[in-house]
Amino acid sequence: MDTLYINIERLCGRLDELAQVGAIDGTMGCSRLALTDEDAEGRRLVITWMRDLGMDIAIDGIGNVIGTWYGSKTDQTLPSVMTGSHIDTVRTGGRFDGNLGVLAGLEVVETIAERGLSPAHPISVGFFTGEEGSRYAPDMLGSLVYVGGLGLESALHIEGIDGTKVGKELERIDFRGQAPCPGPVPKAFLELHIEQGPVLEAENISIGAVDSVQGISWTQITIEGQSNHAGTTPMQMRHDAGWVAGEVTSFVRRLANEIGGNQVGTVGKIDLVPNLVNVVASRATLTADLRNTDDERLKEAELRLANFCDDLSEQEDVRITSEILARFEPVKFDDSLVREVIKFSKSLKLSVKSMTSGAGHDAQMFARICPTAMIFVPSKNGLSHNPDEFTSQEEIENGSNVLLQMMIQLAGLNHG
Amino acid sequence: MDTLYINIERLCGRLDELAQVGAIDGTMGCSRLALTDEDAEGRRLVITWMRDLGMDIAIDGIGNVIGTWYGSKTDQTLPSVMTGSHIDTVRTGGRFDGNLGVLAGLEVVETIAERGLSPAHPISVGFFTGEEGSRYAPDMLGSLVYVGGLGLESALHIEGIDGTKVGKELERIDFRGQAPCPGPVPKAFLELHIEQGPVLEAENISIGAVDSVQGISWTQITIEGQSNHAGTTPMQMRHDAGWVAGEVTSFVRRLANEIGGNQVGTVGKIDLVPNLVNVVASRATLTADLRNTDDERLKEAELRLANFCDDLSEQEDVRITSEILARFEPVKFDDSLVREVIKFSKSLKLSVKSMTSGAGHDAQMFARICPTAMIFVPSKNGLSHNPDEFTSQEEIENGSNVLLQMMIQLAGLNHG
Repeated sequence: MDTLYINIERLCGRLDELAQVGAIDGTMGCSRLALTDEDAEGRRLVITWMRDLGMDIAIDGIGNVIGTWYGSKTDQTLPSVMTGSHIDTVRTGGRFDGNLGVLAGLEVVETIAERGLSPAHPISVGFFTGEEGSRYAPDMLGSLVYVGGLGLESALHIEGIDGTKVGKELERIDFRGQAPCPGPVPKAFLELHIEQGPVLEAENISIGAVDSVQGISWTQITIEGQSNHAGTTPMQMRHDAGWVAGEVTSFVRRLANEIGGNQVGTVGKIDLVPNLVNVVASRATLTADLRNTDDERLKEAELRLANFCDDLSEQEDVRITSEILARFEPVKFDDSLVREVIKFSKSLKLSVKSMTSGAGHDAQMFARICPTAMIFVPSKNGLSHNPDEFTSQEEIENGSNVLLQMMIQLAGLNHG
Repeated sequence: MDTLYINIERLCGRLDELAQVGAIDGTMGCSRLALTDEDAEGRRLVITWMRDLGMDIAIDGIGNVIGTWYGSKTDQTLPSVMTGSHIDTVRTGGRFDGNLGVLAGLEVVETIAERGLSPAHPISVGFFTGEEGSRYAPDMLGSLVYVGGLGLESALHIEGIDGTKVGKELERIDFRGQAPCPGPVPKAFLELHIEQGPVLEAENISIGAVDSVQGISWTQITIEGQSNHAGTTPMQMRHDAGWVAGEVTSFVRRLANEIGGNQVGTVGKIDLVPNLVNVVASRATLTADLRNTDDERLKEAELRLANFCDDLSEQEDVRITSEILARFEPVKFDDSLVREVIKFSKSLKLSVKSMTSGAGHDAQMFARICPTAMIFVPSKNGLSHNPDEFTSQEEIENGSNVLLQMMIQLAGLNHG
């Protein structure tokens, strides 16, 4: 059988049409927070497209929407090969994050269908509720519930930043469905996504074969020193929470560089009290975001940070306490699927590299229940969660064609 | 003539009575922001005491109140020997800061008067408007206008943090007086004040003979980097404004320690944007407070900080700009008066050390126009601008007796 290729104009047309829903004036971006009216309008548009392709629609109790396509020779008793992502966005988001993975899935179905071909396994394309976590925590909520990582009842009671409840909002927008949670286990799960980082662009590589998702460790560190007059207090008599915060901030980067590999470390938040030019700070609160694909190294980073704080606490006679804000173990994707992503990229003459994902994705939830992998395409300037998020048509086409080959390989193709 | 000693019960009685005005419930502290009703009530109380002592009251255009005592043998054509301080407080202040210097002045007058003695020079006790700067900037406003450092009309138009104007508030509380600004030049000016720092207590010394006030350099440093995802952005591709802020904070202390002497350096204020746990900060704003009694060394500190920022800016490819928020040259007090403070302390068997003031005081304004010095007494735990500010009766007595000997020496004493 000849190699099939997706229709990039058709795919970009759908991306453009979906981006009009909740469009942010004067930008390419859009705003469709989970379960808002804009999200509902986007959902209805995608479902229309699914129906136009002859897909069966299942909506489950948390509002995940799974469209399943059965070709003329599909064995409906076999598990689906599933792809998908999310269509909710952050408050000021781009048009590619999530949406690309969903609409590329539809494009895969249409590409196969228009050639009169039929998969052996059903092909499912899903979009999952509240991946961004911008309105309801945790992020990746819908896929977490799909795989059984969180009970439906608990999920429905989650309260959002605006005081609303997930269950009530699902009912309000008419997306609390009847399909069961957890949902059916797919044969495999694939997700095409923009990188949301700068690596592919910087290295001029077309495809990222994502082999893992970084483990995440978020710690809030509170330093209690002594408020003093910045003029009258000799340096050696200070217990300066602000200075200690500076030392910790400096150390977190040194730590990441010393551990090396894909270890990253960030202090993104610092708050001093009283935060005045002429007062030695009595109190500082800062956060350390540590990530690594290797849990042992992540634990080493956590331990070294804790030891550094202990030493500083003693040296400066300040009280340092810490609180874990979040801790996720790294996720490893399926080796064999990752190798296939590399193989198909090369067969399409596309440059490819194995890489890790620094951000969380719905695919990492599916990795708990079935063979899973992800395909990354470049993000211009590494920008995401931003209306200026951009991936070129050619890059989208490349990634979608890799997804297409993978889906064909996994679903098995016959002449219809 | 026998050595005279002040009456500590009488002085502490007045301190206590004044502290009832604007008292903060459940604490020893009080709240009398400049030109508020509480400040006005405090002013009227002190004026009552001045009148009871037979002092002439002069209120000038900025609301400074100068009580002058002429004994029976005083030559009224001679310039006054002046002491004083302020009675306004920060919003949650202590009972000693400022008030001690004013009420010790009254105690000096009463001690001399009750012995039937008369000074050759008039003795003046002043309290100066808005020393704290908590409601109206700049601080030391009244003494600045008294010495001609700021024109009266400009001062009257200053707007406060609550949108009020100095001139209107002076009229409202009936303290816009007729005495001229600038005011008469005293023969000498002395100010007794709590240290507001920890040095005297830590070294177990009774009296600080203040020989200088530190020069102050406040710089606001703004770092513009690039906002990035804390998970997806490799360490070497970051332009992290938060990390740069940490490095600068760390450097400011290193700088102070390297320059040594009485150089101090503080980063008391840090603000990151967007200040989120999982976002590399795009922007950081921080302040550097550098102080030294030696202006050359202070300039060296400023230059080295600027160079450090330039190097970091290049190394990290971030934009660093700085803005001078305040710059005051160091003030040197009168050598001969400082030596007298040391001499009288020793004659009273009190431990004494020459020291610098890290905080600003009304005395530094008078240093522009007449021989000036200050006497410091210990502050428990170095605390000030705090209801827990504390100096013991014995420490107050010691300092007031040194002030008394100094005033006698300068004014010249005769039997009345």
